[in-house]
Amino acid sequence: MFDLEKNYSINARRMKKSAIRELLKLTGNDEIISFAGGLPAPDTFPTEEVADITKTVMAREGAKALQYGATEGYKSFVEELIKWEKEMTGIDIEPKNILVTTASQQALDLVGKLFIDPSDPVLVERPTYLGGLSAFNQYGAKFIGIKMDDDDTGISIDFLEEKLKNLKAQEEHYKFVYVVPDFQNPTGITISHDKRIRLIELSEKYNFLLIEDTPYRELRYEGDDVTPLMKMDQSGNVLALHTMSKIFAPGLRLGWVIGNEKLIDKLITAKQAVDLCTPSFTQAIAAEFMRRGDLLKNVKKVRIEYRKKRDIMLKALEDHMPKHPKIKWTKPEGGLFLWVTFPEEINTETMFPEAIKENVAYIVGSAFDCYGQLKNTMRLNFSFPKEDTIEEGIIRLSNLIKKKLV
Amino acid sequence: MFDLEKNYSINARRMKKSAIRELLKLTGNDEIISFAGGLPAPDTFPTEEVADITKTVMAREGAKALQYGATEGYKSFVEELIKWEKEMTGIDIEPKNILVTTASQQALDLVGKLFIDPSDPVLVERPTYLGGLSAFNQYGAKFIGIKMDDDDTGISIDFLEEKLKNLKAQEEHYKFVYVVPDFQNPTGITISHDKRIRLIELSEKYNFLLIEDTPYRELRYEGDDVTPLMKMDQSGNVLALHTMSKIFAPGLRLGWVIGNEKLIDKLITAKQAVDLCTPSFTQAIAAEFMRRGDLLKNVKKVRIEYRKKRDIMLKALEDHMPKHPKIKWTKPEGGLFLWVTFPEEINTETMFPEAIKENVAYIVGSAFDCYGQLKNTMRLNFSFPKEDTIEEGIIRLSNLIKKKLV
Repeated sequence: MFDLEKNYSINARRMKKSAIRELLKLTGNDEIISFAGGLPAPDTFPTEEVADITKTVMAREGAKALQYGATEGYKSFVEELIKWEKEMTGIDIEPKNILVTTASQQALDLVGKLFIDPSDPVLVERPTYLGGLSAFNQYGAKFIGIKMDDDDTGISIDFLEEKLKNLKAQEEHYKFVYVVPDFQNPTGITISHDKRIRLIELSEKYNFLLIEDTPYRELRYEGDDVTPLMKMDQSGNVLALHTMSKIFAPGLRLGWVIGNEKLIDKLITAKQAVDLCTPSFTQAIAAEFMRRGDLLKNVKKVRIEYRKKRDIMLKALEDHMPKHPKIKWTKPEGGLFLWVTFPEEINTETMFPEAIKENVAYIVGSAFDCYGQLKNTMRLNFSFPKEDTIEEGIIRLSNLIKKKLV
Repeated sequence: MFDLEKNYSINARRMKKSAIRELLKLTGNDEIISFAGGLPAPDTFPTEEVADITKTVMAREGAKALQYGATEGYKSFVEELIKWEKEMTGIDIEPKNILVTTASQQALDLVGKLFIDPSDPVLVERPTYLGGLSAFNQYGAKFIGIKMDDDDTGISIDFLEEKLKNLKAQEEHYKFVYVVPDFQNPTGITISHDKRIRLIELSEKYNFLLIEDTPYRELRYEGDDVTPLMKMDQSGNVLALHTMSKIFAPGLRLGWVIGNEKLIDKLITAKQAVDLCTPSFTQAIAAEFMRRGDLLKNVKKVRIEYRKKRDIMLKALEDHMPKHPKIKWTKPEGGLFLWVTFPEEINTETMFPEAIKENVAYIVGSAFDCYGQLKNTMRLNFSFPKEDTIEEGIIRLSNLIKKKLV
């Protein structure tokens, strides 16, 4: 056989198999209560609606829905997305401001492709979404991690500005700042309104692209909506990433990005070489799902279910986690995740096999850190586990922590 | 706004909007008889079957089909693909040899990503598939074009070996040879059995990866199947790219690649960062489509329809194209395309607007040439135009050529 290793590109040599993915394989066992995945609850999937909609779509527009489509997106889907954006956030966009993607992960890949040359600084939250790190890492990003403030208002703006100042002084070619502002994966934290204003100011002062990755925005269970960065921006500096994965179904792999016309146009060119277009078929189905009002109905259903699960998990943590000044967790107002911090001596990586032995799983916090640190943290998912297993899972985890603290 | 141009990566600066795509926009007019696109005929799409299958899939496995799936592919779809490969070509593969992709274009992108560093030589046929050129171009490939022999047996093996010898002598880091061996896009030519044997020998002698891109293989209208390169290969040097686009429907964006385990494993890692997984939903539908025997039925239906259209186009060319020693066209035994060569003085690029004025469209041959030459050639598609328009289209084209020859 030809020599694979010798022939790989520099990019390919940088790719690592996801450690998380390997860990997740261990959680397949039915006995395990898993807080690890980021999966939506399958009982929220509108299977009957999808069957019925497919029948309608095939009868009405089958020849179009099974054909190649425009790279920018299927016309009726784009129209519904524009209406959705208007209804949900009041933002007015035109078709030239939107590109349909094969879910958010593709958008992250395209952003990396368009902006990252090897060793380019990319600024990210600590912790941040794992899939963002892996997409940008492929292109050789040099990550600069921005810490979170302790008051659960998100990214430290002062720290960010300090880093930007340094980069500018050193004439380093930083290109974008990546944030997950709503019920962040992995922490569940939402960036406060005041901080958003400052983020936008910084994007103008330091002239950078601001990536607003917002897969959970619609899943708010309490409190008031915080204005999207996209809505605050007047300069075309924000690119917003959206997805159907958490509000409809991840198995369709549908996402969309919103941004200024020139950037969207370049993203279209990049997408063309990557997969020509996102399936017309799934876009036609999603368009009809939205047209019927089923998406909003589904969001409302999901909110009720996940809110209940979040509350069960928060109560279980309150009831069973040992009282300790250095053990704390976030209380997210929405989304799918919360984040637990332990005393420094608890290492969630080395503890992982023990947790599996106790039939409970989580994701180690270090997986979400661009520096691979934060080893005394973990992410817990509350959307996927069955309601009546959550307390038992937290009890198992709490008992393990109790043993460690002795 | 932040400065887009200044911030683009080197790769992004290399990307060009497809000239073809812009030209194709001109063919939207209903009056135009278009031989330009590479689209399947929409009347072959099994819309009723898809509606019925979706109902079955949603009822039986909706929770799984709408959920995230494994990057490698949806289990039942992979199983059906393995059976399909066995039935159609007699090749035995295991799940570890296969990766489901978001159609072939994604496979081309992943190959480029894994193997091409800027200025790496990549060897391609002249002409070759446009989407291959654009996928590899993003990564900075330095194309080396291999001419075709005049006898319609495909790529010149002697010419290829000469180029390989030179590259080796200069210690140039060539990585793969890309071929479309069956009813090639754009020429319709099939590489002969003897040449395939020599290709495999060369891949061993010169140690290169051989990319066998074969979207049309199942669409043979006459003559005998030629053994796939994948079947001849004993060393694991061949990676074969397949797609559902021409045998089922392009709107599903489903493809698969077959190759040696190590390479497939690396492709999985690369795909993970790019889109996590191909839609479970479309894979579940395709699996059921295959399980019911509908795919083979569909292939048989498509063969009959396209064969008829090919025959009409060949007869029309025979009847109407001016007799000239330097005007000739290929007679493909399958696929979707044929290739017309004119005397040097005919430039299909400058002629294109005139053709549009005459309400007939084609694709300029230079679009398929890695060197942008071959300006006296064009690609004609016979699968998409309606049967009763083909002769009229060829008449329009022939009249234009007659005027040019005067």
